[in-house]
Amino acid sequence: MGGTALIASLVYNSYTRDFFVVLENIKELIDMAKLSFEFPDGSVKEFDDGVTAEDIAKSIAISLGKKAVAGKVDGKFVNKNEPLHKGGKIEIVTGDSADGLSVLRETAAQILKAAIAADFKNIYFGESAADEDGFFVDTDKADTQISVDQLGDLSKSMEKLIKQDLPINVTFLSKADALALVKGDPYQTELVNEKNANDKVKFFEIGDFKSVAEGAVLPSTGKVKIFKLLSVAGAYWQGKSSNPMLQRIYATAFNKQSELDEDLKKRQEAHERDHRVIGNQLDLFFVDPKVGAGLPYWMPNGATIRRTIERYIVDKEVANGYEHVYTPVLANLDLYKQSGHWDHYREDMFPPMDMGDGEQLELRPMNCPSHIQIYNHHIRSYRELPLRIAELGMMHRYEKSGALSGLQRVREMTLNDGHTFVALDQIQEEFKNILNLMVDVYHDFDINDYTFRLSYRDPENTEKYFDDDEMWNRAQTMLKGAMDEMGLDYTEAEGEAAFYGPKLDVQTKTALGNEETLSTIQLDFMLPDRFDLHYVGEDGKQHRPVMIHRGLVSTMERFVAYLTEIYKGAFPTWLAPHQVKIIPVSQDKHGDYAKQINDQLRKLKIRSSVETRGEKMGYLIRDAQTHKIPYTLVVGDEEVNGKSVSVRRYGQQDTQSESLDAFVDEIQKDIASYSRND
Amino acid sequence: MGGTALIASLVYNSYTRDFFVVLENIKELIDMAKLSFEFPDGSVKEFDDGVTAEDIAKSIAISLGKKAVAGKVDGKFVNKNEPLHKGGKIEIVTGDSADGLSVLRETAAQILKAAIAADFKNIYFGESAADEDGFFVDTDKADTQISVDQLGDLSKSMEKLIKQDLPINVTFLSKADALALVKGDPYQTELVNEKNANDKVKFFEIGDFKSVAEGAVLPSTGKVKIFKLLSVAGAYWQGKSSNPMLQRIYATAFNKQSELDEDLKKRQEAHERDHRVIGNQLDLFFVDPKVGAGLPYWMPNGATIRRTIERYIVDKEVANGYEHVYTPVLANLDLYKQSGHWDHYREDMFPPMDMGDGEQLELRPMNCPSHIQIYNHHIRSYRELPLRIAELGMMHRYEKSGALSGLQRVREMTLNDGHTFVALDQIQEEFKNILNLMVDVYHDFDINDYTFRLSYRDPENTEKYFDDDEMWNRAQTMLKGAMDEMGLDYTEAEGEAAFYGPKLDVQTKTALGNEETLSTIQLDFMLPDRFDLHYVGEDGKQHRPVMIHRGLVSTMERFVAYLTEIYKGAFPTWLAPHQVKIIPVSQDKHGDYAKQINDQLRKLKIRSSVETRGEKMGYLIRDAQTHKIPYTLVVGDEEVNGKSVSVRRYGQQDTQSESLDAFVDEIQKDIASYSRND
Repeated sequence: MGGTALIASLVYNSYTRDFFVVLENIKELIDMAKLSFEFPDGSVKEFDDGVTAEDIAKSIAISLGKKAVAGKVDGKFVNKNEPLHKGGKIEIVTGDSADGLSVLRETAAQILKAAIAADFKNIYFGESAADEDGFFVDTDKADTQISVDQLGDLSKSMEKLIKQDLPINVTFLSKADALALVKGDPYQTELVNEKNANDKVKFFEIGDFKSVAEGAVLPSTGKVKIFKLLSVAGAYWQGKSSNPMLQRIYATAFNKQSELDEDLKKRQEAHERDHRVIGNQLDLFFVDPKVGAGLPYWMPNGATIRRTIERYIVDKEVANGYEHVYTPVLANLDLYKQSGHWDHYREDMFPPMDMGDGEQLELRPMNCPSHIQIYNHHIRSYRELPLRIAELGMMHRYEKSGALSGLQRVREMTLNDGHTFVALDQIQEEFKNILNLMVDVYHDFDINDYTFRLSYRDPENTEKYFDDDEMWNRAQTMLKGAMDEMGLDYTEAEGEAAFYGPKLDVQTKTALGNEETLSTIQLDFMLPDRFDLHYVGEDGKQHRPVMIHRGLVSTMERFVAYLTEIYKGAFPTWLAPHQVKIIPVSQDKHGDYAKQINDQLRKLKIRSSVETRGEKMGYLIRDAQTHKIPYTLVVGDEEVNGKSVSVRRYGQQDTQSESLDAFVDEIQKDIASYSRND
Repeated sequence: MGGTALIASLVYNSYTRDFFVVLENIKELIDMAKLSFEFPDGSVKEFDDGVTAEDIAKSIAISLGKKAVAGKVDGKFVNKNEPLHKGGKIEIVTGDSADGLSVLRETAAQILKAAIAADFKNIYFGESAADEDGFFVDTDKADTQISVDQLGDLSKSMEKLIKQDLPINVTFLSKADALALVKGDPYQTELVNEKNANDKVKFFEIGDFKSVAEGAVLPSTGKVKIFKLLSVAGAYWQGKSSNPMLQRIYATAFNKQSELDEDLKKRQEAHERDHRVIGNQLDLFFVDPKVGAGLPYWMPNGATIRRTIERYIVDKEVANGYEHVYTPVLANLDLYKQSGHWDHYREDMFPPMDMGDGEQLELRPMNCPSHIQIYNHHIRSYRELPLRIAELGMMHRYEKSGALSGLQRVREMTLNDGHTFVALDQIQEEFKNILNLMVDVYHDFDINDYTFRLSYRDPENTEKYFDDDEMWNRAQTMLKGAMDEMGLDYTEAEGEAAFYGPKLDVQTKTALGNEETLSTIQLDFMLPDRFDLHYVGEDGKQHRPVMIHRGLVSTMERFVAYLTEIYKGAFPTWLAPHQVKIIPVSQDKHGDYAKQINDQLRKLKIRSSVETRGEKMGYLIRDAQTHKIPYTLVVGDEEVNGKSVSVRRYGQQDTQSESLDAFVDEIQKDIASYSRND
């Protein structure tokens, strides 16, 4: 309750000739002893200082008190039995809610820490956290590292602590006492040092084990019953690659076994789809954070897929009237000052390079200013519009290291970028052209699971947007008109447009459940203005074009990640890095025939190879299946004599005998049709 | 003669009882008055202080005195009539020598300056220089700029000064006096300010006109007779893009009219071949120094050529066993510290970007460390060797702005790069593989004008090279053996090898006469060592591979520049950005047929378009020829009725009537054969 003193004065009433005492701040003191809490429904109730979340819950309903596992005051978790000394917005956290699950997992994390501390000497603790995905604990063991093999023993140690049902206490120490307690553990020391001098530092205690705490836990270890230690991976201390690498133990906990089972099944499915896992299995790419986080190296297999996609998309665009260009990844910083990127997008940009003669060079975060250079290199006429400029444009964006993920989130990326310059009245027609091309491309890649969203300006706050009412109104009407004409389903989002124009987004989901934008068509009224773009109209006068930014298949990195996940690594023949594997039954007797088929296929630019390892046939066929090679050809006496091949398609159990000519014909059709049967 | 004082002492001889004077440094002073000159033949002769180059020449032969136009003392030009106060290595410059031509041109440059000063008010002078290519004078005129139209008048003013045969005097001023003289001209002031406080500043004087001088000139304006003002172009003051842009007047001068005529003819030829000129005519690319010097933008036409080459070379390499990859242009600076680039190549590298968490990211100057990452990503077996990794690898090198030239010398470039990892005993075979591929590629591009050069280590200084005698000896023998086996002509250069291994260079010449390396095969013993590369041998033990760096067609930038020059812009059909132009005689009557042919050709991926401008037929045909389009098809009544086309091949005067089918067949063959007739 703190040290507020009672202020009292002795006062003489000349009329009553009495002395009396005036207590000046008695009301304030009474108010202080009462804590005022506002409930989610807006009602407000007062409680005595030192009340707990459980008490408050009980005051509403005894049953709620029983169900409560913690509280949340002004958005911060508190233990259900923790005395409260400050009012605020309160929520009662029950075990069956998402927050309740977080509290359960935070508790499990503390039990895991206590188990680790019991099992290992000289171990330090980094961060730990619990969320909707599970929980993790970071550790650093000087001599050896905790390996995935030790998770079983650690689970048993946790179960022992759970069986004992030890109370989990909350203590608050002064910063000095806290520092003394964590002495020797550099990470815990750093966590305590981040506190202000007068802050009390919160600790959880399980038996003798104490650790710096955030959030809320259940009152005793026995409350956690269903948990699972999942995996171990490296994680930099505080997410910075210049810091030491710690061992992060991933785990999860649930209220019911059935929930855990379902979660593990989902994890397994996501794991099987995860492009990072498949990327490793099929040797598509790797990232080495020491050489550069977010800077993938495409191995030959991944590079073949990417190159095939790049050629496909460039040819498609050229056939659809796009002019492909190459523009530099570097430009004078002034270009991005003029475009506005430097003012509004600087956080995502790499630092400029000072070239020493006043020139500052910048890695581009977007390709639009480069394509504007191409537009502006000539005087343009209305006859040239729509002018479509496209590029496989490399860009650099400095994503936070925590956000980086395989090929999905990177720092160097090549965008299938395009900018169309149109007259205002051409927007609808050009928007349809782009949409048609997009749907055509999706069809070739067999992409079906996506949604369209149109984003408009907020009609209530038009002053927040680029100032040209006519342009906005006509453009929005034309976008909607085009969608309707094409009979496409879409949602509309008012107020979601960018400052500079309305747009269409195509949304999909990754294997991990994150929403990603696969394609976008963005109208832009601003850049033509900022760069003073013109075309000479039929009237001989200068007019301002509208710019349409569009990406059909996003960046090569993100698109290959996406395709890897939707195909589960079984790329259709036209994209598969290895299309045919030829296995001679005997190298001596059938090796020549195998080589002959191989040469014939390679002349047709089919990616074929002959198996030369002297392993057993069963192993070799399984190996080809593991590598998801579309066609495995086995050739023995019968095939040599009959000029035939024994064909096994990926994913099928049986083998078909075909004439070699028929097979060549089949695979060529397969490739040319993008493996579609329509 | 400077301020050396005579040191004299009065001495008393006690024996003779005489006083006498001792002159301590009289010999030194006498020596000083004599200047000692060493002639090119090694002989040495003394002359009095103040002697001129002309005097010295006459002392050898009267005729030489007459032929002398200037002198050169320790490599610096002096006027022939300039009194000399310091000895040194002397050369007599005669009018018919290359140096004599430089003196003539320096004289012409001074006359041009005097003419400009006479013709224009408020004009400032930047740098001027004379060399084997001619001479130039930089000017800055505040209000307007000197244009190419004014060169005629300037020539006349120069001729006037030449007719007057004014003496050209040399004056030396103190720095203070010099500053007073050039006051108001910011560039001349800067030039004077660069001198030390005690330096005398040299000026040339023609009549009233004085300018800060370097080098030597002829004694009077009348000595220059044959000169030509050529062109005007922008040039940054002192070559820095952050400095003001001055107007550079290019010109030349000769002793004889016939020499000038020949030079102008050569210039015209070089101009017609110059890829920058053709690049502009055919709209292939542009560079905007404001957005980034040395950072070209490839317009659609240039990009089409580049893309065609890229696909050709990647397909060729893949067919020849190369594994194509994509690797990031950025990496942690540590990678280039480990490779040695940071220590030995830093001057050409871009500045590292400090990412704020201790990480320094660097734009790669070479791709080799990236391909080493690919090699090292797996444990490699002898069965995988030779392992061939290739990439269209973008790199950044900070070339001096003065060295930049169109696509030929740039700061951002994409190299047709490849690295082969071999066992020591595979060098010869792999070297031959690469050479065969190279010669094959040259054949397809019709490249014939090149020479091979093998560079070895210096046998007298083997300690200057990577220390492995056996490796050097075997490797050099194998390279030579491969060249001989293939029957190729080559020169050998001892001592020209790089520190880390012997190499083969393929040299060509640009239109401007500069030698360029088109291809290179470089052995490298060092990087495998620095990155501790291994492969598991047949013996199960670890072995060190040898690395071969190779580029078949250099960078895309340099190669397209080179091809543009050897083809004079008339690209063979397979590379031509526009392959077919179809001109309907009447848009109304024959436009449909033209469009029908166009659609048919475009379906075959032939780059065709229909002429829709309503210009006269003659103009349109000439226009197609100017754009060097391989096939112009004219279609009128006869063609519509006969399903035929009237074909005009580029560079031919006549037109041939063919059936449409025959033409389609012909152009497809033309493209597939790389337009070669063999």
